[in-house]
Amino acid sequence: MRKIFYPQSVAVIGVSSNPRNLGRNIVLNLIDFGFDGIVYAVGPNGGMFATRRIYSSVLDIPDHVDLAVILVPARFVPDILEECGQKGVQRAVIETAGFSEYSEEGRALEEKMVAIAQKYGIRFTGPNSIGAINMENGFCVPFARLEPQSNAGGVSMISQSGGVGMSIMNHMTKEGIGLNKFISIGNALDTSAEDLLEYLIEDEGTQIIFMYLEGINDGRRLMKLAKRSPKPVLVFKSNVGKLGHNIAASHTGALSSDDQVVEAAFHQCGITRVHDVTTLSNYMKTLRLPPLTGNRLAIISRSGGHAIIAADACEKTGFTLSEFPQEFIQEIEKHFRASVIKLTNPLDLGDILDLDVYRRIVSETLVRENVDGVVFLHTSVDKTERNNNAKLIGSLARLCQEQNKPIAIYLSAGEDEVDSLMEQFDFPIFTRIVETFQALKLSHDHSQIIAGTSRKDEPKVFSVNHKRVDELLGLGLSDNRNLLLDEAMEVLGQYGVPTVTSAVAISGIEAQKVAENIGYPVAMKLISEDVLHKSDVGGVELNLTSGTAVEQAYDKMMVRIHASYPKAKLDGVMIQSMVAGGRELIVGGRQDKQFGPVVLVGMGGVFVEIFEEATIRVAPISEREARAMVDELKGAQILQGARGQEKFDIDALVEVILRISQLLVEFPQISELDINPLRIKPENKGCIALDARIILN
Amino acid sequence: MRKIFYPQSVAVIGVSSNPRNLGRNIVLNLIDFGFDGIVYAVGPNGGMFATRRIYSSVLDIPDHVDLAVILVPARFVPDILEECGQKGVQRAVIETAGFSEYSEEGRALEEKMVAIAQKYGIRFTGPNSIGAINMENGFCVPFARLEPQSNAGGVSMISQSGGVGMSIMNHMTKEGIGLNKFISIGNALDTSAEDLLEYLIEDEGTQIIFMYLEGINDGRRLMKLAKRSPKPVLVFKSNVGKLGHNIAASHTGALSSDDQVVEAAFHQCGITRVHDVTTLSNYMKTLRLPPLTGNRLAIISRSGGHAIIAADACEKTGFTLSEFPQEFIQEIEKHFRASVIKLTNPLDLGDILDLDVYRRIVSETLVRENVDGVVFLHTSVDKTERNNNAKLIGSLARLCQEQNKPIAIYLSAGEDEVDSLMEQFDFPIFTRIVETFQALKLSHDHSQIIAGTSRKDEPKVFSVNHKRVDELLGLGLSDNRNLLLDEAMEVLGQYGVPTVTSAVAISGIEAQKVAENIGYPVAMKLISEDVLHKSDVGGVELNLTSGTAVEQAYDKMMVRIHASYPKAKLDGVMIQSMVAGGRELIVGGRQDKQFGPVVLVGMGGVFVEIFEEATIRVAPISEREARAMVDELKGAQILQGARGQEKFDIDALVEVILRISQLLVEFPQISELDINPLRIKPENKGCIALDARIILN
Repeated sequence: MRKIFYPQSVAVIGVSSNPRNLGRNIVLNLIDFGFDGIVYAVGPNGGMFATRRIYSSVLDIPDHVDLAVILVPARFVPDILEECGQKGVQRAVIETAGFSEYSEEGRALEEKMVAIAQKYGIRFTGPNSIGAINMENGFCVPFARLEPQSNAGGVSMISQSGGVGMSIMNHMTKEGIGLNKFISIGNALDTSAEDLLEYLIEDEGTQIIFMYLEGINDGRRLMKLAKRSPKPVLVFKSNVGKLGHNIAASHTGALSSDDQVVEAAFHQCGITRVHDVTTLSNYMKTLRLPPLTGNRLAIISRSGGHAIIAADACEKTGFTLSEFPQEFIQEIEKHFRASVIKLTNPLDLGDILDLDVYRRIVSETLVRENVDGVVFLHTSVDKTERNNNAKLIGSLARLCQEQNKPIAIYLSAGEDEVDSLMEQFDFPIFTRIVETFQALKLSHDHSQIIAGTSRKDEPKVFSVNHKRVDELLGLGLSDNRNLLLDEAMEVLGQYGVPTVTSAVAISGIEAQKVAENIGYPVAMKLISEDVLHKSDVGGVELNLTSGTAVEQAYDKMMVRIHASYPKAKLDGVMIQSMVAGGRELIVGGRQDKQFGPVVLVGMGGVFVEIFEEATIRVAPISEREARAMVDELKGAQILQGARGQEKFDIDALVEVILRISQLLVEFPQISELDINPLRIKPENKGCIALDARIILN
Repeated sequence: MRKIFYPQSVAVIGVSSNPRNLGRNIVLNLIDFGFDGIVYAVGPNGGMFATRRIYSSVLDIPDHVDLAVILVPARFVPDILEECGQKGVQRAVIETAGFSEYSEEGRALEEKMVAIAQKYGIRFTGPNSIGAINMENGFCVPFARLEPQSNAGGVSMISQSGGVGMSIMNHMTKEGIGLNKFISIGNALDTSAEDLLEYLIEDEGTQIIFMYLEGINDGRRLMKLAKRSPKPVLVFKSNVGKLGHNIAASHTGALSSDDQVVEAAFHQCGITRVHDVTTLSNYMKTLRLPPLTGNRLAIISRSGGHAIIAADACEKTGFTLSEFPQEFIQEIEKHFRASVIKLTNPLDLGDILDLDVYRRIVSETLVRENVDGVVFLHTSVDKTERNNNAKLIGSLARLCQEQNKPIAIYLSAGEDEVDSLMEQFDFPIFTRIVETFQALKLSHDHSQIIAGTSRKDEPKVFSVNHKRVDELLGLGLSDNRNLLLDEAMEVLGQYGVPTVTSAVAISGIEAQKVAENIGYPVAMKLISEDVLHKSDVGGVELNLTSGTAVEQAYDKMMVRIHASYPKAKLDGVMIQSMVAGGRELIVGGRQDKQFGPVVLVGMGGVFVEIFEEATIRVAPISEREARAMVDELKGAQILQGARGQEKFDIDALVEVILRISQLLVEFPQISELDINPLRIKPENKGCIALDARIILN
């Protein structure tokens, strides 16, 4: 991948002498951004542009070419690629659009391109991309004419959309956030977002990685890479709702994904997800500060009003304010009393002109053991202070590095001044108070996540009779049907999930006999591959207390189901003992297109109906993660014994989740699994599956 | 109030020849902002400044003075005010700090000032304020040196904090939002935020009113004013959490308020609350557009990626995308086919250079009957397009006015270009997609709120035996105690709230007799003014089924309570019939310091414990509002019969809420009231209060 960003010679293919030709922009961008290699222009009609010759073919270039930037009509791209191969060009950035995202002919062209690239060992990005930028060597090949910016820095960006990538670069410039590398992946035919992520994790100049994605290609690989990245990985994943799917398909061909799974997967592998550009730029800013490792802040403000807003925001984002002990107050008082309005935290400094006093107070505060970070709110409405403001920010930036603790500077001043200070310092300046605290929250969470994902935390593996499970699934697969209730319960049993005592019966009399053995009261549930939601159609009877009741229930159920589903094959009923007490949960999972097996848990009954609540993780999961899933449930307090009430057996629940996680990983032929309900009993009494559904691929 | 903003002659008192004197800034600001009246400088040492004489007293000024701006040390302010009075000055802006917010001496000075002002009929703003601005006549008297801005417009601001006000003005300038008037109220000793609000509602130049408040002065008046305001009222209310209270007290002396009540009150009177500056500036922008009266949008985008993000945001904020019928698509196709990538909504326009095509497509879309508003996403990375961009925005702005429907323009372009376009057009330009939709959501909600608050919606008045309630409350007040359980239940009864059948007993034998009359099973509840949370200390026994059980329970309860509270006066027990079935709720209310009586309702049991959920309103409320309170409850679906289950008697619940609302309004001596639980029965079966607490002032 490195060769894509650090070529020594570049051929821009698709340049003409027409003033509206876009290839010319690429050449001009390379010149303006000071590319430190050689640029050749190529176009079928030859001619000249920008004091250089336009070669009619890449084959005519007298020297070696490392990389070709291709922007010619789609139908010519395969031939151009062929010529590149003959020339020995190893890398290409293909910007042309109009391929698989546009038409079937385009898809055929893509297939040709892949074949040619494979033949010559060419790696390429795109097509349907806006190109790439490397601020380190001035490699800048977007086909839009760009303003050379001085904002080189440590943030690198992988964007599925060229337009969105450009917009975000505009925001970064505006907020003084320095770019390192940018690449637009477009249709990602050869080089994927994951390939580029892998490279940027190693890339020396990159400190923070940002990705804009409309679809997820290889979710498991993405997770694996992010998990081992020592650099923060921020992702803006769009194409979340229903309204955007169509347009995404025609834009970069991105497929939709289950957003709850994406959310869970990102969380598991330490990716920070953003949903808007405001948040993104605050995150990029805060990640350039030393990490905030604790939650004790000090607020130092020049304006009382700002201090109040800051204190509110501090509380709302879950931080606390460090207490200042008496001797510290006295120390401050001795030196600065005249200047300070209120000696508390927040510290209200009042409106003095000697900005050096501010620096010294911030310094005294930052070194304190019980202060993890400082928020310094600087308001400067007076235009005579400009020079002093710059000095102050410079010295606070140094202080921050020396102490390796963050100082978040909020600045309220005239527009020009704020802009020029942002440009002047490679140090974040925030302009909105609430967002300053939200950004610090991220810094704090990020150091926690890094600590969490790096922890040795392997999923437990339970021993299981795989052979029997294989047989059961095989039965279903060979008959091209899903598992029957009794089979599903047996699979659970094989995986060590406690299931209710039950037996199959295929006549009323047999049902009665089976029920005698199990002991009354019993439940009766229909077994039929043709009736999926059995409780909705009268396929479940509960609390049958006598043999007569069981027999009658059997007959009535068969008549009832037959009336509704005359063609359904009825395989009898399952008789189960009634389980009293406890609470109902749902545990299950499914195969996700992008992320593979996922496992989920939710509260049953009124909770799941009203709050539609379930927590989800990509399997396999560790015990710690399973426990976190339970903790995140809205009703978790009930399980934990809210209000001095009975506690439930969370340990047993966690074990069921882990066993289901293992089952879904080991048998990917299960496309969906539900235990509904799983009855959880009081502490140390376990939990038990009362009903289950297993859907096969 | 008008005289504060439109003086013809101004005396700035506190000007000296010292270059660091702040009074000089005031004079210079008036000059720079082009004040259209006469400015006099006043300072005890005389001299001259800015080519004008400094008078040593306001009394020396040869002409009439309409308004004095006072910035002298606090101890001199009363004398200066006295001189102003003698001179016949009718209005003053007092900027000096160091009064009640600072010390007791300061408070005494304030009292003097009030007396002098009353003697001469002077109305003043401040003290402890940064002054005022009126962009219409160049009246600009903050003591900080300001950059004259060209951003005159329709937004007026009342700010409790000068610093925060200045910061927000910076943001407004940056976002191209025009200011009309600004006033910093500081300690609001004479002129309150409500006084100024009342004026700005009438003020011709003001179209949108924004207030930054750290405390609420007269909540009821604020509500009344906002309710009748045809202009949008936006409020940023800080000082919400615990951490900010101290600093607020020393800043402007603002007292804290119950934030849930503030939230409810604002909602009831149509105030739009903001919690950060980003949201605020988006709201200010969107309110300058024609109102969005429906929720059907069209998204037109130049970039596919932006269209996807927009579609996500559209869905998330609750809007829908209008369907484009076949003939419309054909029409567009006929004229613009070559330029449009995807003929759906969102409409992906692709990257063409002819911006006039965009204008025509937006126009065709906006006039459609099923389109309530258009979001136009314009991305322009190419610096050659600048002129065309300006033309396009200008024509879209006109289109918007012609059709009286909003076009929200999102623009992604270079920083300079965005800034200059924002300055050039008195038309909002958004720079973040997600926030664009959030802003449109506000516009939509705002038109709904305006429709809602203007509706004729009077609270019902129930007829009540006030005399008996007065007697019962009088008993408590004269004994300096709260109401006993039986008294509280009687008050509810008088107000028509159904209460459980019950009777008092003061011995085990009497309890038994009473229980026989009521019928078993019964509940027994302690009556004692000294034991407030009786269920926590064994003062409640439920489900007593026989006379013996009642008698024993009585004796044991007395022994138990006596052991825990040896000094408590025990007034016997209340025997109540046990009420089976239904669900538990809490209905109650209290007197709020700023807003007076408030009424609340919450789900009981596990819901209130886990979600701490209650909805609240400032009383009195209408039936519609009471119904909304119930609908807003997280558990409302349960009452409405979620999942095909039983419905509960919401009509009866609404009536109880209305009766309690009336009780709290008519008897302000009740400082707190709880019905806990109120048992709600199935539809048409009513609800019934099982226990109640009434706390008196």
